[in-house]
Amino acid sequence: MEKIKVAIVGYGNLGKGAEKAINLAEDMELVGIFTRREPKTIESQSKVYSLENILDFKGEIDVCILCGGSATDLRSQGPEIARHFNTVDSFDTHAKIPEYFNDIDLAAKEGNNLSIISTGWDPGIFSMNRLLAQSILPQGETHTFWGEGVSQGHSDAIRRIDGVIDATQYTVPIEESIERIKAGEKVNFTPRDKHKRICYVVAEDGADKEEIEFKIITMPDYFVDYNTTVHFISEEELKKNHKKMVHGGRVLRIGETSQATKQVYEFKLDLDSNPEFTSSINVAFARAVYKMRQEGKIGAITVFDVPISYLSNLTAEEQRAKLL
Amino acid sequence: MEKIKVAIVGYGNLGKGAEKAINLAEDMELVGIFTRREPKTIESQSKVYSLENILDFKGEIDVCILCGGSATDLRSQGPEIARHFNTVDSFDTHAKIPEYFNDIDLAAKEGNNLSIISTGWDPGIFSMNRLLAQSILPQGETHTFWGEGVSQGHSDAIRRIDGVIDATQYTVPIEESIERIKAGEKVNFTPRDKHKRICYVVAEDGADKEEIEFKIITMPDYFVDYNTTVHFISEEELKKNHKKMVHGGRVLRIGETSQATKQVYEFKLDLDSNPEFTSSINVAFARAVYKMRQEGKIGAITVFDVPISYLSNLTAEEQRAKLL
Repeated sequence: MEKIKVAIVGYGNLGKGAEKAINLAEDMELVGIFTRREPKTIESQSKVYSLENILDFKGEIDVCILCGGSATDLRSQGPEIARHFNTVDSFDTHAKIPEYFNDIDLAAKEGNNLSIISTGWDPGIFSMNRLLAQSILPQGETHTFWGEGVSQGHSDAIRRIDGVIDATQYTVPIEESIERIKAGEKVNFTPRDKHKRICYVVAEDGADKEEIEFKIITMPDYFVDYNTTVHFISEEELKKNHKKMVHGGRVLRIGETSQATKQVYEFKLDLDSNPEFTSSINVAFARAVYKMRQEGKIGAITVFDVPISYLSNLTAEEQRAKLL
Repeated sequence: MEKIKVAIVGYGNLGKGAEKAINLAEDMELVGIFTRREPKTIESQSKVYSLENILDFKGEIDVCILCGGSATDLRSQGPEIARHFNTVDSFDTHAKIPEYFNDIDLAAKEGNNLSIISTGWDPGIFSMNRLLAQSILPQGETHTFWGEGVSQGHSDAIRRIDGVIDATQYTVPIEESIERIKAGEKVNFTPRDKHKRICYVVAEDGADKEEIEFKIITMPDYFVDYNTTVHFISEEELKKNHKKMVHGGRVLRIGETSQATKQVYEFKLDLDSNPEFTSSINVAFARAVYKMRQEGKIGAITVFDVPISYLSNLTAEEQRAKLL
């Protein structure tokens, strides 16, 4: 059987996760990792190439998995690569998705390629659950909770404060609120009711810890709307106990199919490695992109447009016999 | 906007649930209920017709939702109706699915129609989760648990015992086993390790309760492989407390994306009404069948073949903007 030829663009946490996931996929081979850095500086068992030379690989790559960040890389890199290759990305700036979709759609159609945007778990399979749950239970409310897990964005925000050497921020869902929702209570939660934030911070010697704590808990957008706890710990302890990229979350929909008939739909993830799980999803969608492109589909699509059968390397007969 | 014209075939619990779900769907109208019984005997606010006359409605029905039972009705009724109309059914005899799929595929193609088989929650959205989870996490184990909820099949089996007037059987998942799986333990569970069975039984006056209990707990296929508890109660108590068709369950996949990196995927339902929830799913898939047939698709399909976007009455733009 001919294998699906996949390339990884970008070799941060997501790129490393994609490399592992491709190696677990029997129907795929990794053409190589494409990086903006000097290829020789990348430590990997795989082939590493300069991103500048990716066009030399036209015809040798079935799908590129774009592993750059949304804010910095994907906004421009996504359309550029979609013009030349089928792509998968996990663009996650929710508010910019419609605009990004249009740019990718245009670029992919120009190049006769197919691109799926915003895969991963949120956006991604959480979105699929939100849409599925709402379609099944039109009368109801959907709630998304995240955590317990590390938010890179919030950890970065703390690190930018003067006097902070390093930090890890955990987003923690408030279980009592989840129980109230599941019990069928009609709620109108503020951000503070749904999540709390716990921060582990390494301060410089002699830094004013009270001031750092004040700056964290009053920080607009990131912390001010939540109950936030700050723990100052040593650099050693942070490295030992708080550098795992654990995460998770859940999508809940409580619907009524008739008077006082409550139906609870829940999807939950509990992840030891957020980037490895995200990349595993991206790799499964790379398989779908390959198959759908083979069938003639071009342009931009999302997780909403992909039948689940396309994510699997089993035949349709095997799927029906074993998993239906 | 033109509404999707839906018919219900069969008016048991699933048919009643479908009627409620169609009334909640703004983009659908119920053409009528088709029954093998005398239409006048059916109590419903909807139009009721004899199933014998359904061919008179050719061109007036976009999709028929088949609400008969798998064992008795669907095996023959499914292909007959698929020859003349697009259909949705919740055929749930897992072992017979491949054979039923082929029969429906042939019949639907003869009639230039599209039929989805085996929707509902298991088979149905549980199957979607099993396939999705396995596709994302190829290295791992999937476990399905059912309950706590009423199994009609097991309740019926008890009712067939001499001296039994009525009975309700609850299938109860063993939470401790679920916790062991989530903790990452490699398990090799027997049926007894995963579920227990609790029976509420109304016996005739003077019946030998010990003998009834013995017959239940030793019944092959249904009870002998499980820890089963039997409670004898009054008919009044059974009617008051044990006639709700509650059910639920969960699909769990524990995967590893790299050495000792555990990823827990969980999908869970907790349902006040099993038939109403099943029917709500069937109605959402009726929408998908309508759209996919409009695009020219014919033959038999399953839940694996349907992009989630097709289940929704939102436009693709709305879906991306609001739910991705």
